[in-house]
Amino acid sequence: MRILFANPNTSEAMTALMVAEARRVAAAGTVVDAATAGFGSAYIATRAEAAVAGHALLATLARHYDGHDAIVVGAFIIPAVVQAAKELMPVPVIATGEAGLAIASLLSRRFAILTIGAPARKMTEEVVEAAGLAGRLAGLYDMGLTGTALTEDQTAADDKAVALACEAVERDLADAIVLGAGSMEGMARRIAHRVPVPVVSPVGAAVCQAEALVRMGLGKASAGAYAAPQDLAMTGIDADLAAFLARSS
Amino acid sequence: MRILFANPNTSEAMTALMVAEARRVAAAGTVVDAATAGFGSAYIATRAEAAVAGHALLATLARHYDGHDAIVVGAFIIPAVVQAAKELMPVPVIATGEAGLAIASLLSRRFAILTIGAPARKMTEEVVEAAGLAGRLAGLYDMGLTGTALTEDQTAADDKAVALACEAVERDLADAIVLGAGSMEGMARRIAHRVPVPVVSPVGAAVCQAEALVRMGLGKASAGAYAAPQDLAMTGIDADLAAFLARSS
Amino acid sequence: MRILFANPNTSEAMTALMVAEARRVAAAGTVVDAATAGFGSAYIATRAEAAVAGHALLATLARHYDGHDAIVVGAFIIPAVVQAAKELMPVPVIATGEAGLAIASLLSRRFAILTIGAPARKMTEEVVEAAGLAGRLAGLYDMGLTGTALTEDQTAADDKAVALACEAVERDLADAIVLGAGSMEGMARRIAHRVPVPVVSPVGAAVCQAEALVRMGLGKASAGAYAAPQDLAMTGIDADLAAFLARSS
Amino acid sequence: MRILFANPNTSEAMTALMVAEARRVAAAGTVVDAATAGFGSAYIATRAEAAVAGHALLATLARHYDGHDAIVVGAFIIPAVVQAAKELMPVPVIATGEAGLAIASLLSRRFAILTIGAPARKMTEEVVEAAGLAGRLAGLYDMGLTGTALTEDQTAADDKAVALACEAVERDLADAIVLGAGSMEGMARRIAHRVPVPVVSPVGAAVCQAEALVRMGLGKASAGAYAAPQDLAMTGIDADLAAFLARSS
Amino acid sequence: MRILFANPNTSEAMTALMVAEARRVAAAGTVVDAATAGFGSAYIATRAEAAVAGHALLATLARHYDGHDAIVVGAFIIPAVVQAAKELMPVPVIATGEAGLAIASLLSRRFAILTIGAPARKMTEEVVEAAGLAGRLAGLYDMGLTGTALTEDQTAADDKAVALACEAVERDLADAIVLGAGSMEGMARRIAHRVPVPVVSPVGAAVCQAEALVRMGLGKASAGAYAAPQDLAMTGIDADLAAFLARSS
Amino acid sequence: MRILFANPNTSEAMTALMVAEARRVAAAGTVVDAATAGFGSAYIATRAEAAVAGHALLATLARHYDGHDAIVVGAFIIPAVVQAAKELMPVPVIATGEAGLAIASLLSRRFAILTIGAPARKMTEEVVEAAGLAGRLAGLYDMGLTGTALTEDQTAADDKAVALACEAVERDLADAIVLGAGSMEGMARRIAHRVPVPVVSPVGAAVCQAEALVRMGLGKASAGAYAAPQDLAMTGIDADLAAFLARSS
Repeated sequence: MRILFANPNTSEAMTALMVAEARRVAAAGTVVDAATAGFGSAYIATRAEAAVAGHALLATLARHYDGHDAIVVGAFIIPAVVQAAKELMPVPVIATGEAGLAIASLLSRRFAILTIGAPARKMTEEVVEAAGLAGRLAGLYDMGLTGTALTEDQTAADDKAVALACEAVERDLADAIVLGAGSMEGMARRIAHRVPVPVVSPVGAAVCQAEALVRMGLGKASAGAYAAPQDLAMTGIDADLAAFLARSS
Repeated sequence: MRILFANPNTSEAMTALMVAEARRVAAAGTVVDAATAGFGSAYIATRAEAAVAGHALLATLARHYDGHDAIVVGAFIIPAVVQAAKELMPVPVIATGEAGLAIASLLSRRFAILTIGAPARKMTEEVVEAAGLAGRLAGLYDMGLTGTALTEDQTAADDKAVALACEAVERDLADAIVLGAGSMEGMARRIAHRVPVPVVSPVGAAVCQAEALVRMGLGKASAGAYAAPQDLAMTGIDADLAAFLARSS
Repeated sequence: MRILFANPNTSEAMTALMVAEARRVAAAGTVVDAATAGFGSAYIATRAEAAVAGHALLATLARHYDGHDAIVVGAFIIPAVVQAAKELMPVPVIATGEAGLAIASLLSRRFAILTIGAPARKMTEEVVEAAGLAGRLAGLYDMGLTGTALTEDQTAADDKAVALACEAVERDLADAIVLGAGSMEGMARRIAHRVPVPVVSPVGAAVCQAEALVRMGLGKASAGAYAAPQDLAMTGIDADLAAFLARSS
Repeated sequence: MRILFANPNTSEAMTALMVAEARRVAAAGTVVDAATAGFGSAYIATRAEAAVAGHALLATLARHYDGHDAIVVGAFIIPAVVQAAKELMPVPVIATGEAGLAIASLLSRRFAILTIGAPARKMTEEVVEAAGLAGRLAGLYDMGLTGTALTEDQTAADDKAVALACEAVERDLADAIVLGAGSMEGMARRIAHRVPVPVVSPVGAAVCQAEALVRMGLGKASAGAYAAPQDLAMTGIDADLAAFLARSS
Repeated sequence: MRILFANPNTSEAMTALMVAEARRVAAAGTVVDAATAGFGSAYIATRAEAAVAGHALLATLARHYDGHDAIVVGAFIIPAVVQAAKELMPVPVIATGEAGLAIASLLSRRFAILTIGAPARKMTEEVVEAAGLAGRLAGLYDMGLTGTALTEDQTAADDKAVALACEAVERDLADAIVLGAGSMEGMARRIAHRVPVPVVSPVGAAVCQAEALVRMGLGKASAGAYAAPQDLAMTGIDADLAAFLARSS
Repeated sequence: MRILFANPNTSEAMTALMVAEARRVAAAGTVVDAATAGFGSAYIATRAEAAVAGHALLATLARHYDGHDAIVVGAFIIPAVVQAAKELMPVPVIATGEAGLAIASLLSRRFAILTIGAPARKMTEEVVEAAGLAGRLAGLYDMGLTGTALTEDQTAADDKAVALACEAVERDLADAIVLGAGSMEGMARRIAHRVPVPVVSPVGAAVCQAEALVRMGLGKASAGAYAAPQDLAMTGIDADLAAFLARSS
């Protein structure tokens, strides 16, 4: 099986971090290829960056999807963009965010999410609400660190995450913890033994869900919300995306 | 007062239709300028087109917003994109969809929406849910006509809309009707006397809401969800948008 | 255009305060007339007073509505009464509360409301829930001052409001502030520059919404929830209301 | 135990019908006294009539409550008014509507309500939503008869109710039926053997709930939403209500 | 009238405590018989114990229900089990939990629940949500005492309950307090005068609701969710339950 | 990896059908062992059978879980029982129902479920609501066949399922179909090419989710809702369960 891991952020370092985690969790025999957005933001954390990421992600997928059985999108806070990819692509598309929430909901009555920065906080909250899981959110906990700081001092970041996770368990009765940003990937394995409830890596969750869809043969719908649109014509757009649309119509 | 009417679709004809309605409703002394998306889809009706529209709308606003007191975006089904514009722009941004729903909710216990085509139907439904108004939706009624057909035979389109509206009133107890697509603008005035409940033009509603914000002096927040993000850096994006970001940081 | 501003409270001073704000926001050419309830409570703050206000408001409107294009009711916490007015009156009726919430929802992901006194707090909360906006309420903040104290020491009241608003922004991530009582009208303009998010005057919002309905020609429904009831006969009621019912049937 | 049955409608015939049912269900030793509204509508079926009923009900209670342990209000669609009575009165107040829904929710996963006329339908729906029971409403079924017709041809009314109830059970999977209007009282006993699920009389339910509160000693709160307001002063109101307020402050 | 009070816990002492309260509230002429589960847990406080209680309660009812007009189940946190009993038994079944919530919702806009121990807390929360009353829950307050401690030092338990109840009223605006565990029965009468809002005994509430159903003749449905299943065949189960199923098919 | 597939029904034939599907989907290297409930119902379809299944499932797991990395429970409509197993067992427990819904929610905006018989219908609906997915349920479609009929004439059953699935897609806009009963397992592969949207096998979904949890190392929580209860003591229960509890405390 061949999975395309697509990062809608332009940071190659972040792609590398997430793909490493994806490959660690992937089953024997699953190949994970990586693709990074060609334009947009290095680290999507605002609505404006998320809006531009729509164009960028579809362009990236158009360029790289060929030959893959499923696509994993490394993103928590761009649900509208992920839905567009589900609609347009001929193979299943899973976002790390939705997969992490699905796994957390199987493991808990109530889960907490660690987030990075105020702007992402509200967008994360909206993702939870859209999933119908607002009633099961124990809380959002802000790491108080930028993505950069997070990778520069891993020990400090891990300590902070453990402290927040334990606070979520004790004060807000969380039964599971979800890492709410790609720059925290890798942390789940490192801190698991220090937190009394499961810590979910959304990248790992998404790879497993993508494999599940492929193994069950749950392919592209030819009707409904995610059926491929007919004869889409867009002008002035990214060349790879334009070529994809031309081939598809 | 000066309002920028921005069409995230690339169709100039659609811009003209909507701007005509905007000007008809605008107060004396309000100037409405028009801008049309420079790339993307002529008529956004799918999630993929909505995703690309994020980039296109921000680029359009970056190019044209200067000198305006408020922005109206002619769009019903791209709420994530509209939120990005609210975040990024230094003046208030109102979408026709959210404004049409706000007016309908003041006029009714339950409202119906006329939509164009299956893909837009589900996206419209999600807009209503996100507004917290799902419990007040009497139903969605599909015109069964493309945007093109709609403008080519206005009489047939009006007759169809009247029939659906009356069905919504009688069968589903709708107290107001909302026109769910920009290509229906102008219709509200034409059919109002044939429908026993108010028929809302979202373009008209948005112009009035934009004027209201300006007259009340409700300007840009410097904190919270729609505060301007600091030092946004995106690469490879539309030149006008890049220039805007450079100026803003 | 001629708008009737109706105060369901019996306090003429409060009417004056609210009407001054209404006139300040009204468009050139809009005349705002004032009417004050002839019986009931000077300042509605409990459910019992709200219950009596139903009779009083309908009587006031029956006496004064003639010759007006729309009615604004100066009330936040009497939604059932406002709905009755929408049903009975032949022109559009807008309450300051519903209008303030509508404007706040266009400006924010989450808004806070400043309230006066414990009894009004729960009633305000219910208004937000009924509007479908409970998920977007950042919180209710009690001014801890009676309406009287509020008008006697404006500086203290403004300082208190600014402090609460800033707390709402910082602690509960509010993106907009709504003034939850008529006795606070005028304050929005005074404190706007001291609060980092927009501060909404419900009176201003309602005047703008009323003008919008008139300009768009969104008149009285002849079917549905707010159609005028046929042949209403009530005995022993206020003479003006009785005369209105006699004329209408 | 002494219960006051208060009819917010002015029809003595309707009072008689409801009180007969109340007495039939009351425990041995419970005395049920009757009071009928002194002004307002003979049969409340619109929002305007419900609004006037606020004043009328409080006046009726002020005049008659003395010497009673609890109050039952014969009303389904005036929840705001009933809450005002709960706040103002020194003894527990139960409405037939809320009691009927409470009993139905203990007997069913999903219940249906028989209603009379279109205006009452939407108000009934709102009562169910406010009770948090919208997810358990199988449907509202309109008797298609006025209250008058209902009492004039009891056989026809019973047949119609049985037909609707059976349709609700078969088509919408209702497990219980609630009679949604006072003019249907007495019917539950007559048709019970013809309907395969329980048929709930709201008057009976309210009497039982009132007795329960008294037997359990669950009296007036001195804090919270239904604590008696202090020093209420209203002018120009019903004389009995004014006297009650004067005595209470 | 004859009511069976069934305790799904195996503790006879707890049965005695609850039945004493049941008899105190029951009307003259109502006989309350007691039955205690023959197997399972002395004090159900976890999901595993609740799961076993399904078998145990149905067995207990099969053995003892004969000759009773209604059944009260002394349980707050086993809603799925109570529903099974409603389905299987030929007479009405009421749980103390659902009855306590129903009474609290008639007395308050918002109620608080006193609970015992962390595991029960989340299960109680789910009961409130399933009842549609999540929006009216002021909070859950943990007594911080085991059931045993509670009965051993009644004075300390009462003091703790009063302190928590007053905190709920002041901080979270609770208008009523519900005792969330059978081992607290008897406390409501003892502390009522020390708490400014009503304190609800779920056992008392359930006895009153059971009497209400019997007096109103609201018997077993022959259709819908709680109709008796046909020809249930289960093997290897409790002998009394097996005998009951054999008789019923 | 070793997964225990536990059937809470007593039918060995049904176990065989489900386990066959589980093994087909399982990854190379995953061993799936089977266990069937020792007492209770052959085919759980009512609340009474579901209640007994609590005891039966825990007993089955106590007897067989040893040596397995995760447990899959073959059940859609016994969510309370599955939660008990999650709490009690030292390894992750996944039910087919929750797993099927999780996969469907990743594949669709709205999904439909094929059910067997009226009693199961309402219980299935409640499972969807508890998962927070009520807003995404396109509808429940009753196969109109008993489990027995279903297995006896597979062609007829498949034709019926295809017809219902296509109706769900066309009429209710379903984007995915979920098989709502274990006796339909195997059908998804057979009918997939005849249905225009993905058809989800809950058994397959659960096996994949269980493998995911094990591969990600998401083990037993030592705190929160699913932490193992301490010192559980139950008397009179199944011998294997009693032995398990004795070992655990």
